[in-house]
Amino acid sequence: MAAAVKYVYEFGARTDGDAQMRELLGGKGANLAEMAKIGLPVPPGFTLTTAVCAAYGENGGSLPDAARKQMVDAIQSVERQQGKKFGDGKDPLLVSVRSGARESMPGMMDTILNLGLNDGTVLGLAAATRNPRFAYDSYRRFIQMYGDVVLGVHARDEHSPDPFEEVLSSVKRGAGVDFDNQLDPDQLQDLIARYKVLILREAGVQFPQDVQEQLLGAIGAVFRSWGNERAVLYRRKYNIPSDWGTAVNVQAMVFGNMGGDCATGVAFTRDPASGENVFYGEYLVDAQGEDVVAGIRTPHPIANLKKDMPGVYAQLEGIRERLEGHFHDMQDLEFTVQQGKLYLLQTRNGKRTGFAAVRIALEMEREGFIDKKAAILRIPADSISSLLVPIFDGAAKGKAKCIAHGLPAGPGAASGKVCFSAQRAEELHGRGERALLCRTETSPEDIRGMLAAEGILTARGGVSSHAALVARQMGKVCIVGASALTVDYATHSLRVGEHTVREGDELSIDGTAGEIFLGSLATVPSEVNQVLNGTLAPEKSPLYALYARLMDWCSGLKKLGIYLNADSPKQAEAGLRYGGEGIGLTRTEHMFFEDGRIDFVREMILAETAEEREWAVQKLLPFQREDFLGIFRAMGGLPVTIRFLDPPLHEFVPHDEATQRELARKMGVAFEKVRERVASLREFNPMLGHRGCRLGISYPEISRMQARAVFEAVVQCKKDGIRVHPEIMIPLVGFAKELRHQAEIVQKMARRVEEESGVAIDYKIGTMLELPRACLCAGEIAQVAEFCSFGSNDLTQTTLGMSRDDMGNFLGRYTELEIFSQNPFATIDRDGVGELMRIAVERGRAARPDLICGICGEHGGEPASVKFCHSIGLNYVSCSPGRVPVAKLAAAQAALAGGK
Amino acid sequence: MAAAVKYVYEFGARTDGDAQMRELLGGKGANLAEMAKIGLPVPPGFTLTTAVCAAYGENGGSLPDAARKQMVDAIQSVERQQGKKFGDGKDPLLVSVRSGARESMPGMMDTILNLGLNDGTVLGLAAATRNPRFAYDSYRRFIQMYGDVVLGVHARDEHSPDPFEEVLSSVKRGAGVDFDNQLDPDQLQDLIARYKVLILREAGVQFPQDVQEQLLGAIGAVFRSWGNERAVLYRRKYNIPSDWGTAVNVQAMVFGNMGGDCATGVAFTRDPASGENVFYGEYLVDAQGEDVVAGIRTPHPIANLKKDMPGVYAQLEGIRERLEGHFHDMQDLEFTVQQGKLYLLQTRNGKRTGFAAVRIALEMEREGFIDKKAAILRIPADSISSLLVPIFDGAAKGKAKCIAHGLPAGPGAASGKVCFSAQRAEELHGRGERALLCRTETSPEDIRGMLAAEGILTARGGVSSHAALVARQMGKVCIVGASALTVDYATHSLRVGEHTVREGDELSIDGTAGEIFLGSLATVPSEVNQVLNGTLAPEKSPLYALYARLMDWCSGLKKLGIYLNADSPKQAEAGLRYGGEGIGLTRTEHMFFEDGRIDFVREMILAETAEEREWAVQKLLPFQREDFLGIFRAMGGLPVTIRFLDPPLHEFVPHDEATQRELARKMGVAFEKVRERVASLREFNPMLGHRGCRLGISYPEISRMQARAVFEAVVQCKKDGIRVHPEIMIPLVGFAKELRHQAEIVQKMARRVEEESGVAIDYKIGTMLELPRACLCAGEIAQVAEFCSFGSNDLTQTTLGMSRDDMGNFLGRYTELEIFSQNPFATIDRDGVGELMRIAVERGRAARPDLICGICGEHGGEPASVKFCHSIGLNYVSCSPGRVPVAKLAAAQAALAGGK
Repeated sequence: MAAAVKYVYEFGARTDGDAQMRELLGGKGANLAEMAKIGLPVPPGFTLTTAVCAAYGENGGSLPDAARKQMVDAIQSVERQQGKKFGDGKDPLLVSVRSGARESMPGMMDTILNLGLNDGTVLGLAAATRNPRFAYDSYRRFIQMYGDVVLGVHARDEHSPDPFEEVLSSVKRGAGVDFDNQLDPDQLQDLIARYKVLILREAGVQFPQDVQEQLLGAIGAVFRSWGNERAVLYRRKYNIPSDWGTAVNVQAMVFGNMGGDCATGVAFTRDPASGENVFYGEYLVDAQGEDVVAGIRTPHPIANLKKDMPGVYAQLEGIRERLEGHFHDMQDLEFTVQQGKLYLLQTRNGKRTGFAAVRIALEMEREGFIDKKAAILRIPADSISSLLVPIFDGAAKGKAKCIAHGLPAGPGAASGKVCFSAQRAEELHGRGERALLCRTETSPEDIRGMLAAEGILTARGGVSSHAALVARQMGKVCIVGASALTVDYATHSLRVGEHTVREGDELSIDGTAGEIFLGSLATVPSEVNQVLNGTLAPEKSPLYALYARLMDWCSGLKKLGIYLNADSPKQAEAGLRYGGEGIGLTRTEHMFFEDGRIDFVREMILAETAEEREWAVQKLLPFQREDFLGIFRAMGGLPVTIRFLDPPLHEFVPHDEATQRELARKMGVAFEKVRERVASLREFNPMLGHRGCRLGISYPEISRMQARAVFEAVVQCKKDGIRVHPEIMIPLVGFAKELRHQAEIVQKMARRVEEESGVAIDYKIGTMLELPRACLCAGEIAQVAEFCSFGSNDLTQTTLGMSRDDMGNFLGRYTELEIFSQNPFATIDRDGVGELMRIAVERGRAARPDLICGICGEHGGEPASVKFCHSIGLNYVSCSPGRVPVAKLAAAQAALAGGK
Repeated sequence: MAAAVKYVYEFGARTDGDAQMRELLGGKGANLAEMAKIGLPVPPGFTLTTAVCAAYGENGGSLPDAARKQMVDAIQSVERQQGKKFGDGKDPLLVSVRSGARESMPGMMDTILNLGLNDGTVLGLAAATRNPRFAYDSYRRFIQMYGDVVLGVHARDEHSPDPFEEVLSSVKRGAGVDFDNQLDPDQLQDLIARYKVLILREAGVQFPQDVQEQLLGAIGAVFRSWGNERAVLYRRKYNIPSDWGTAVNVQAMVFGNMGGDCATGVAFTRDPASGENVFYGEYLVDAQGEDVVAGIRTPHPIANLKKDMPGVYAQLEGIRERLEGHFHDMQDLEFTVQQGKLYLLQTRNGKRTGFAAVRIALEMEREGFIDKKAAILRIPADSISSLLVPIFDGAAKGKAKCIAHGLPAGPGAASGKVCFSAQRAEELHGRGERALLCRTETSPEDIRGMLAAEGILTARGGVSSHAALVARQMGKVCIVGASALTVDYATHSLRVGEHTVREGDELSIDGTAGEIFLGSLATVPSEVNQVLNGTLAPEKSPLYALYARLMDWCSGLKKLGIYLNADSPKQAEAGLRYGGEGIGLTRTEHMFFEDGRIDFVREMILAETAEEREWAVQKLLPFQREDFLGIFRAMGGLPVTIRFLDPPLHEFVPHDEATQRELARKMGVAFEKVRERVASLREFNPMLGHRGCRLGISYPEISRMQARAVFEAVVQCKKDGIRVHPEIMIPLVGFAKELRHQAEIVQKMARRVEEESGVAIDYKIGTMLELPRACLCAGEIAQVAEFCSFGSNDLTQTTLGMSRDDMGNFLGRYTELEIFSQNPFATIDRDGVGELMRIAVERGRAARPDLICGICGEHGGEPASVKFCHSIGLNYVSCSPGRVPVAKLAAAQAALAGGK
């Protein structure tokens, strides 16, 4: 007979699991087991595995029998360890029921505390603790949580009051008290009775007195909460697969709210916002753990604990060191002190800002906790951006009015229009405006708004409050616990001292310093950028040292070349400072819009004969030559990939009558002719129209001019002793013959310029692969192309049949339904677009083994896409200059992670 | 040492090749060899192979040495057989030099006759034939041809006079004669001298006196003519690969112009226009072969030869039978009678009209020449259409004015505006008007205009004239040799009796009867269609009998199902009459535009809430149900594939203010609201926008309504005892989740309607594959889809990144440059779109082995595409009702040709 599946893993005196078992036990369960194993003071309990979650769903909402059976044994084990019985009328065992997925999803799912209390056991608890107030308070809290989470009694929407809170307020009013902890046992009993009535009325069932029923109900609710809207939204944002499921942890309750020798707190082994290596956290005396995290009362900094409970603090300091030594990463831990005794309720790798991620990883490597590989792999590639975003200009800050301070919870500078609801922040964002979300405190319902906002500001809550936690993970600029602020939702305003800030007014927040300013402040480049552009000495910036060390490592490890999308010498120089190794895309048409040229461009487009066109084109030649010369000079010998004219011509012509008339006058033709020609350029689907190489084929004189401009610039460089490696890239090729046609023009022109100048010209000819057909026929195309570069923006549009400009009408719905796991215009759609890329590389290299393959769509600077590009063997990614560090880190991570 | 490549193949007394060697010898060369082999009277000669053509191009325009050497031997062999010497001053051997590609390309390439004449040999010819006039006339013709073809002395453009003809006219004027054959030897010598001066002046070289130089020059010119513009255009039209190249035939001259006992003619073993089994052709006494083909003099019908030269006629009759017996196909032969002796110069499978192709193939099968398989494979699938095109209404013809008769050279009915130049015909066609091209005679320069015209009418030339030949192949309605017509290019008019028809006037021509009518005549269905729709008894139509026999054969042979694209019961019925086996595409939106519905559709679209939309949608339900009911009834149990709403919604809403105001009034909302909503539907690239299943996902109430309409119609049918097999097809799916979302809506609705009605519903759910991503992910999609149908129109647009509506700006250039071998919207682009289809079938069937795969784009009715669909294992093609017979024939041909 096969052994029954093990669904329940104990921790405590006996511990079945360990930290490696995250997939099965979830992060919290695995780490509880690990802590128990290494002898840390963990209240005993057990974990129902993620496999139970799947089985629960498949069974239509009930536990497998084997799981129920194993649970009975596990509860008995906890009873033995605690010397109490679950449901016992004298000294009842109480438990907490918490979710715990493979990746932490803070605030996303539900927790129930004090489970095991009923009308009988509450008397036992009162007697055993000799504290009836505590017993009844615990009971009413349990009923409230159970009613909310398991029985679905909660506010109808975010604007309605919580029904339990309404009852509570009414009881408080009746008792004439202001705070919960001022209610006496009788008043609490009255409250409990009214809670029960509320539940019966709203949920249609009695609050269950049977503790086994309570436990099963709570476990079921946690499993169900995996599928609630907040959790789904969160998973979507962080790309967590929904089939992972959650585990459930049932653990003996310990109480931080039994009196002055009790406390509860949250701590980080390092500062999660700045990354600094200091013990960091906060606690509340005489409180339950959720009070700290919920941000309702602003807790004390952890340092105060040294004075309040010196023994406990010393013990915690020791644990901090042990945890980092054991887990080799910054830990986020929860603890409770019950009558002077310290318990650890949770430890996990702490969420951190991008800023902190870089700093902690690099410092831990230096401290010997981890090796270089681990350090690199641990930094989310995107987080390097937080070292590069602008900061407030010191001078501007000096002149601005700093109206308040708060706890710095997300570094960086943000300005925007103040709004007081998540919905409003979304609205502003939707209109393309910058929103600054200000709340007394945030809750999971605010997540969409927090995503939409530039920055987040709360009046209450500490660095482990919901706002701080979420902002940290989203990489948002954030200040929490700015207690001088009073937010008034009714009047849509906030007050601070004599100032009143209304919805729509501008505020600026410095999330690094925790400072709040009136108005919108000017920004300057980040510290790293100041060093890079020479306005700050490197030795003055420890941050730069970290950055430079990391980039240096990456350069040595990565296999992919990191190229630039740069259309001007200035962009090229910026990209070079970040370590760009060449230009993967110069869009020649961007140069067309500049002053003094656009008219020639328009004459070229509106020409009716090849002769007229030739004439206009010739006038553009010197400009284009200068453009290329500037870029060649900036890049000094690195490859420069020049894409020939790509966009549909109607993008260049004026569509308003006045400008058309003016143009007609300049060109000396009738206005009607200009108007007609402009109208004739109109297309039903310009994306699929007369553009790319189709232009160069229809109007070869344009390609000839562009080729001449490139080659004459090359000759000039050579004469000036500047090395130069131009690569000419033909866009939107679908048929090998198109490329051949354009290649012949280029080759002829190269020979002609060589003859004219007597200078030999080295160059490559290649193509964009941005049409499905091109990818499928890459073998034939590679017979002509020496290199190819995926134009992944257009390739995504054609492969998915989706116009990026038009998807607004259904994008929301598609995201909601999880039809996209990621936005395919942000991260390469591996199964569709990626498959075509894979096929293209395979077929292209079969025809030309040394075919250079790159990517120059916006995906080239997105970490997951960079890793994909590495996996299919591309030679380089090309991205905007500012994304070079991100791409470089992602490329190094891809190389470290193995594969090609 | 390897044997030298054999470049030269003799025919005559010794014959190296045979009819199987078309690829190497070209059609003409292979058949000359075959005729020589079976003992027909062929003047001896030899063929330079197509391999020489390739080598000639690669050698930069010179023959390989081996070919030159082999040619020397071959000329000696001809000299021996003819008892004459090439270049001999006494009795010189003269030769013709003609092109001969694998497929005949009539009139496309160049020919040179009488080669071997020079100032010396002409004297010998004069002496040997005792006919100085003939000798000098032959010489001046040779100089003219050589000057034109080899030395490039010809008219500057189609409006300029031929320079040789100018000289000839001036000599004739000087001599006071009207016709060439009235010039005496002295005058001809004068002409020859002036021709030589013309050549020296225009070409800058002396006319060559060396006969070897003449021969090499002529051969080179023929090879070069493979690449001339006319030939390229022709190949493009008929999809002849340019790498085939042409062979060159050098053959001893025989003369049909040596006097009254000489003749030259062209004959078909059956009527190439109607297909009738009669000896058919024409000849001219005392003429060179080119005179007949060029259509300059109207020749006599072949029957007259019986009287003129009874012996020759009898011999020809015998040859006619032998040729058909030998080649098993209708032959097109050229003959020359030199001093009473018959020579065959060429035989080849005769070009024929579609009409004739069907008739000849079927009759030859009945006569035992060929078997059923050969008969089917021999009919170009498109040609079946010519049995189905409308004919003139008998009553209309009775009332109309028949102004002239001509030779029926392309059957059918055509009306259009008269134009007198190819350019004008192209212009009219470009504006979407119907053109009727009227010429005295046509020449290769007219080909583009002939392509553009509805019909072709010439005043001169017989059934083997250029006009007849080309019209036959293009399937154009055509009348030639309408000698009562006088075309006056100068005044842009034609005269016939008292009538003057000016450019732009309407004419009608009946190419079956050879009748020309004033005005535009009404048409009626073809004979076959009259039988099919019951207005003509089958036994009254031999044509129908042929059609029915062929279709019957095809039904038994084909593997592909032939389905219909039909949106109404009427279309379904038409398709069933042609043998449609189901509906592969019902576009539900076409029904939306009908009266009484469009307003509900608009209300649905302009609704602001799901409730409003639901309300409008519900009003559409009864209409849709009736639509489906009608189609189900018409199809009586055959599969009916219903595609859910597909086009972008802005196609349904009014874009003019008046209609918007009216709609606002009807809907009881403000005009501004309607205007705004309409504006919000505008898209940059609607092809890639909010359409297809994206609509059903955004507005599930629409899909629910459509599903309910289908299922309620099914229930009604079942109650009425009508069998019904609905297949619901979800459009524009790119992600399996999209299909799953819509499938769930459909499945739920099926269960609901089953519950409501108590009737069990059978149906299938499938999808269109019309996006590259869908093809690549077909495996995942097939886990949901029971069938899939390639939407090859959209798939072509996305795969090629080319909007069919916008390609007008570059299509011409692309066709010219041969970037497309075929228009990808007409014939499936095998390497791109076809490759995706192949991948999709492979991946789809790997996931679901019994996945039904079809196609419902317009390619489904195009023969080459149908054959491709067969080759990749599709289950069916779906096409418009009128294309069913074509698709059926193509499917049978594909099955016969082997493969899957």
